[in-house]
Amino acid sequence: MHVIELGRDVMELNRNLAEQNKKILDGHGVFAVDILGAIGSGKTSLIEILAGKLSEFRVAAIAGDVVSDLDSGRLNAAGIPSVGVNTGRECHLDAHLVKRAFDKLSLDEIDILFIENVGNLICPVDFELGSHKRITVVSVSEGDDTVEKHPMIFVTSDAAVINKIDIADAVDASPQKMRDDALKLNSRLSVFLTSIKTGEGLDDVVNWIRDAKENQVE
Amino acid sequence: MHVIELGRDVMELNRNLAEQNKKILDGHGVFAVDILGAIGSGKTSLIEILAGKLSEFRVAAIAGDVVSDLDSGRLNAAGIPSVGVNTGRECHLDAHLVKRAFDKLSLDEIDILFIENVGNLICPVDFELGSHKRITVVSVSEGDDTVEKHPMIFVTSDAAVINKIDIADAVDASPQKMRDDALKLNSRLSVFLTSIKTGEGLDDVVNWIRDAKENQVE
Repeated sequence: MHVIELGRDVMELNRNLAEQNKKILDGHGVFAVDILGAIGSGKTSLIEILAGKLSEFRVAAIAGDVVSDLDSGRLNAAGIPSVGVNTGRECHLDAHLVKRAFDKLSLDEIDILFIENVGNLICPVDFELGSHKRITVVSVSEGDDTVEKHPMIFVTSDAAVINKIDIADAVDASPQKMRDDALKLNSRLSVFLTSIKTGEGLDDVVNWIRDAKENQVE
Repeated sequence: MHVIELGRDVMELNRNLAEQNKKILDGHGVFAVDILGAIGSGKTSLIEILAGKLSEFRVAAIAGDVVSDLDSGRLNAAGIPSVGVNTGRECHLDAHLVKRAFDKLSLDEIDILFIENVGNLICPVDFELGSHKRITVVSVSEGDDTVEKHPMIFVTSDAAVINKIDIADAVDASPQKMRDDALKLNSRLSVFLTSIKTGEGLDDVVNWIRDAKENQVE
């Protein structure tokens, strides 16, 4: 029982730090987008593509990984200034880790910051990081019941990207069911059906981010 | 810091409960196998298939899910007596939850018990449940860097099932790289390359479980 109580304290501390993070970001004119999603949903690839298409902005990234720096390495190789954050045995980033990553970035030289969380749909839910928007990426290869199995992450997200629709038939999944499930959970959600392989749907995600960035109060 | 200390207590308590669970299982002649893996890796489908092929045994299952009972429902529909366990916001089963699930099963009428954990490769690592073997399932659709990104789960597993090899080309993944990575992390690991769709490799998994069951000390 005391674990749960302690959990509340940790969560409140995190929320306060997340608010501080947001103020720091706003102070530097940085628009931050969380990218959540399971292992292999396509988070890193999506950031690579979005950064390429948002070429009028200076894009950077923070990439959370349990032990490796594979994701930040990939992003740096793709020309996106990136900081890797190892969470050790924790299955999510938290506001404190993100704040520490800010110190390794030149915030004044960033317009859009992607924060890629650790790959799963459970732990990151409660840990706000201070970003302006939260996007959850799910791949059809996770099974088309993955949305209904993980309601909280869709309730707390602003957009859902249903990815790898090019292999939907091969894995017997219905992207439409996934979209319907997501909207049932959160009618305010923007839902995009995408394929990084064919490019389908990606421009809609880009436009959504562009609009949200323009609406950022500075 | 006190979170980590508390974490140690929780872990030790869990280990003790896991040992009790194992004694209970051995007392009833039940051979238990943990099935770990990310969302959509194919855990539930694998259990369905294995249960069908292990038809000389009475098979049952415990299925962990965050909020739903979709997985236990699927298994029950497939004729496998199953108990669903909701973990709420926790991202793993623990020995206490599994012990409670025992009460809903007729252990005397079970030869092999599959325990399907919550879908991710991080949180379940440290929480032993009292099973005899631990199998981790990864899908090639998670990306062929998923093994090296999650070393601890392969270090603590007895077998790794690299699944969905039929779509390896479609998702640009190398199952061989995944196997090599797994064996580099844990040379004692039994590694199987499988496709639930084509049936490839599944008999090898079945034989491995059959052998392990026969070696159970009762």
